[in-house]
Amino acid sequence: MAHYKSDQRDILFNLIDVLNITQYEEYGFDESAVKEIINEYDKFVENEIFPTREKSDEEGVKLTETGVKVPENLHKLNKAFYEMGWFALGQPEEIGGAPCPNALSSLCLSLSTGANTAWSMYPGLTKGAMNVIKKVGDEWARKTFIEPMITGQWGGTMNLTEPQAGSDVGAAKTTATPIDGKDGWYKIKGTKIFISSGDSDLYENIVHLVLARTPGAPEGTKGLSLFITPKYRVNDDGSLGESNDVTCTSVEHKMGIHASATCVLNYGDNDNCEGYLIGKEFEGIQNMFIMMNEARLDCGIQGEAQANLAYEMTKQYVNERTQFKTEIIKHPDVKRMMLKMRAMTRGLRSLVLYTSDLFDKAKKDEKYEDVIGLLTPICKSFCSDRGFDVAVDAVQAHGGYGYCTEYGVEQFVRDIKIASIYEGTNGIQAMDFVMRKILKDGGKTMKFLSEDIFKTSNNLDDSFSFERGQFSKALGAAQDAMGFIGKKAKNNEMNYVLQNCKDFLELASHIVVAWRLMESANIALKKLETADSQDEKDFLQTKVDDFRIYCSQFLPHAVAHAKTITSFEDDITTYKI
Amino acid sequence: MAHYKSDQRDILFNLIDVLNITQYEEYGFDESAVKEIINEYDKFVENEIFPTREKSDEEGVKLTETGVKVPENLHKLNKAFYEMGWFALGQPEEIGGAPCPNALSSLCLSLSTGANTAWSMYPGLTKGAMNVIKKVGDEWARKTFIEPMITGQWGGTMNLTEPQAGSDVGAAKTTATPIDGKDGWYKIKGTKIFISSGDSDLYENIVHLVLARTPGAPEGTKGLSLFITPKYRVNDDGSLGESNDVTCTSVEHKMGIHASATCVLNYGDNDNCEGYLIGKEFEGIQNMFIMMNEARLDCGIQGEAQANLAYEMTKQYVNERTQFKTEIIKHPDVKRMMLKMRAMTRGLRSLVLYTSDLFDKAKKDEKYEDVIGLLTPICKSFCSDRGFDVAVDAVQAHGGYGYCTEYGVEQFVRDIKIASIYEGTNGIQAMDFVMRKILKDGGKTMKFLSEDIFKTSNNLDDSFSFERGQFSKALGAAQDAMGFIGKKAKNNEMNYVLQNCKDFLELASHIVVAWRLMESANIALKKLETADSQDEKDFLQTKVDDFRIYCSQFLPHAVAHAKTITSFEDDITTYKI
Repeated sequence: MAHYKSDQRDILFNLIDVLNITQYEEYGFDESAVKEIINEYDKFVENEIFPTREKSDEEGVKLTETGVKVPENLHKLNKAFYEMGWFALGQPEEIGGAPCPNALSSLCLSLSTGANTAWSMYPGLTKGAMNVIKKVGDEWARKTFIEPMITGQWGGTMNLTEPQAGSDVGAAKTTATPIDGKDGWYKIKGTKIFISSGDSDLYENIVHLVLARTPGAPEGTKGLSLFITPKYRVNDDGSLGESNDVTCTSVEHKMGIHASATCVLNYGDNDNCEGYLIGKEFEGIQNMFIMMNEARLDCGIQGEAQANLAYEMTKQYVNERTQFKTEIIKHPDVKRMMLKMRAMTRGLRSLVLYTSDLFDKAKKDEKYEDVIGLLTPICKSFCSDRGFDVAVDAVQAHGGYGYCTEYGVEQFVRDIKIASIYEGTNGIQAMDFVMRKILKDGGKTMKFLSEDIFKTSNNLDDSFSFERGQFSKALGAAQDAMGFIGKKAKNNEMNYVLQNCKDFLELASHIVVAWRLMESANIALKKLETADSQDEKDFLQTKVDDFRIYCSQFLPHAVAHAKTITSFEDDITTYKI
Repeated sequence: MAHYKSDQRDILFNLIDVLNITQYEEYGFDESAVKEIINEYDKFVENEIFPTREKSDEEGVKLTETGVKVPENLHKLNKAFYEMGWFALGQPEEIGGAPCPNALSSLCLSLSTGANTAWSMYPGLTKGAMNVIKKVGDEWARKTFIEPMITGQWGGTMNLTEPQAGSDVGAAKTTATPIDGKDGWYKIKGTKIFISSGDSDLYENIVHLVLARTPGAPEGTKGLSLFITPKYRVNDDGSLGESNDVTCTSVEHKMGIHASATCVLNYGDNDNCEGYLIGKEFEGIQNMFIMMNEARLDCGIQGEAQANLAYEMTKQYVNERTQFKTEIIKHPDVKRMMLKMRAMTRGLRSLVLYTSDLFDKAKKDEKYEDVIGLLTPICKSFCSDRGFDVAVDAVQAHGGYGYCTEYGVEQFVRDIKIASIYEGTNGIQAMDFVMRKILKDGGKTMKFLSEDIFKTSNNLDDSFSFERGQFSKALGAAQDAMGFIGKKAKNNEMNYVLQNCKDFLELASHIVVAWRLMESANIALKKLETADSQDEKDFLQTKVDDFRIYCSQFLPHAVAHAKTITSFEDDITTYKI
């Protein structure tokens, strides 16, 4: 059976050689500090997280009379995670955090997420909820909730979905009625579904952030407000009070992430559930989007992280397994499959780390905030969809063993799939990308990013002439496709725009990932001139190869996505099913 | 929750309008007889098979001290299946079968397989083993085994794989030692793994067909012989004797097909396992391939069948589920997804039924036997891989509900995946396709099939001018790719050939499926001229649309597969991992 492994050399290449994260003086992280953190974190992942992965999947969560029980092995892990201070990594000092470059904390998140995605969602959602409170909570809210959340006593969740309100968040019906004489407090009543970490015995209390509608609120998302609604009420001294009439009435049986509790939560069945308004009334959706945008990037990391670990485990298998008197990696078809998996997984990693790093860049140049917005749907959807593909290939490369639970790779397929669905399906991401991030923006951010892309491709070494050609073809095809979509938008033929969003997002994602691999390849080629050890030369050569493989194996399909857009002349809604 | 549904109109269109299966006079099946069989079979599938699907998956198989127990609901189903005579459908009269056109029995197999794939493997493997005995068994073997197998008293299996012998079947070590004074009988000793239906309480006896090596046999597949090795010995009067020292020592825990027992079987742990040589010594692999080729087509049917049912269930969902104040099918992105799923699932169906029909055509023109050989790896790999994609899309179209077990669609993803792996991984299929079915054949069969393809495309109505262009582009790209591969083969640069087999198989599969949809579209267009009812017109229009959608949405990717072949100039084995 394969053991846990991370590609530390590639990680450092990204953080140091490509992103140069030691440049941010406010953190005071030099190269050795970066290495030390990664090394320590990786040990924790290997020794504490990864060993819980398969067992917790097998055991799953259980709804009992006293609430949801998570698998036994997650209790020890969760406790250790907070105690070691890993939850606080990347958080500001004033709330007890340990600040570090953003790409570094994202990398760490990726390592732990890959090793047990289901578990990672408990601290993950807690972090998201805490960040909302940090940003828009008033003094009382911040004082009351942040400390127990950062120390791991209390967990957190986000509550958007209701049975009739899935992608259509604005259809939410949960109500919030002001409580007389209790300023800021509302009676919450309604049912929320698909609430990840909605209940568990990992935390003493759970801080639910709930979207609900105040009396007379307008229809749609514009009438939603956000409420801190804890599982147990909180006394003035911060201790826990009585139950807040929030009940988990069932947990979903799912394809994967069995150890993550996906809950139906009933608020106020006994008219005794109280929520505290956070942010302004009717600004619930914007405030929830602080958490949602973070969750979308985390979804991308779920795909990227699991794909990378699946690749590493498969690499061990194909180097050990012999068939036809040789290790199967020596068979050309297996080699092709593995090289494609590596190019893709490293491509996804480079995309995720680049995007994470922009949060630091944006502090100096706020244009990068828009670039983050543009790249968020790419990270979310491309990493989840293509990460899923890599997991499927990992199963395939394992043959019959891959299909058996014992080898741990089929779990990646089951666990990654949800990342294409939650936090806005990938279809919703595609619409967000084209409609909001490009058309509504007038293409400004796209143009800004394109300049960076051209800068890299103009500096490309001449030895990459074939790859330059492939990349130009994809870029040209993307311009054609954008032209087609732009024209339809101008003519207000919106069905034509909407039917093509998904292919356009896919195409744009390929270009962005190829660009990141291009930058890596160019840097690697320069470093090869002075590299001395054979190990280092071999590694740098793999960075050159990743870009080559991506250009020949994936970019033709990027062009195909463009052709599907430009060659289909009909309004698809006129077709009958 | 969606209910069972089959697309009977499309099925009849394939069988009657496209394949004209009433032409085979030996069966005496007119159109109403075809309809009646389908109607009756479909009722059985809806009422008896489909209701067992989710429950049997949840329960799974269990290994007990007395052997493998299958889920309770499969006992009643399996009994009824044989009693109603469905197992005997398509079998010759002389063994108690009910002959019918081959495409019709394949269609029935598809309906039942789609509704519970895991269960379908018990009668499926029994049929395969029975057919081997029918074809190469001597009189005693045929007399002894066929009757109890066709009536459902005894089951059957195929035993190739061993821990060290997966794709490399020739590495099998199981031995067969002649028993003195017992002509034709050998002591069998060894361990076989991944044996589907290897043990169960559905049958009184299980007839294992086992590949083993006689003393002094040559290495590799050429030294393998095939042995009937029943679980219980058979007395002269056909009654069951003592146990034959075959033990199921474990069952695999798997991603899917939980109700199918995947067994480790130990033969002769007590040196008391006896097997009867079937066919000639050293001709085991050829004889096993009678069953293997059938199993490969059945794998294709597993993908095709489940994809079709997944589509039908999703169609119900997207027509019922409302978001943003309308049924989600009305959203362009969902419509696009559904139209692609329909074009693909119907394309897979048309491929499977066309190939099945060739068995009847081959009786008059044996060239079609080679076409079956050429199309087998296409059916096996394309239906399993693309059927898997459809299942994934079905989950996606269901949103969060798709990820929940309750809706029954995520099970398709888990259950289809194995079809890409067993009976020769899809990588092995690709090599079989390029190396044996094209290069070794000197391209003769490919050319023969191409003539049929050109005939159809030359007759294509002028209203399909865009589609003709797309199809020509794909054909041209395939010729380029084949030219590239052929040249490398001629120069004996075999790594270049092997690294491209998978992309070439994918490309060729797209063309074949587009061709089948083209033929359907052309027929539908002609029928539209005289169709009177609106329902019929609507249906015929969907056949035109399927071809259009396939050309615009899938064929650009076929071209991309060709580009990945012709644009990559390196021997992939020279790259380092």
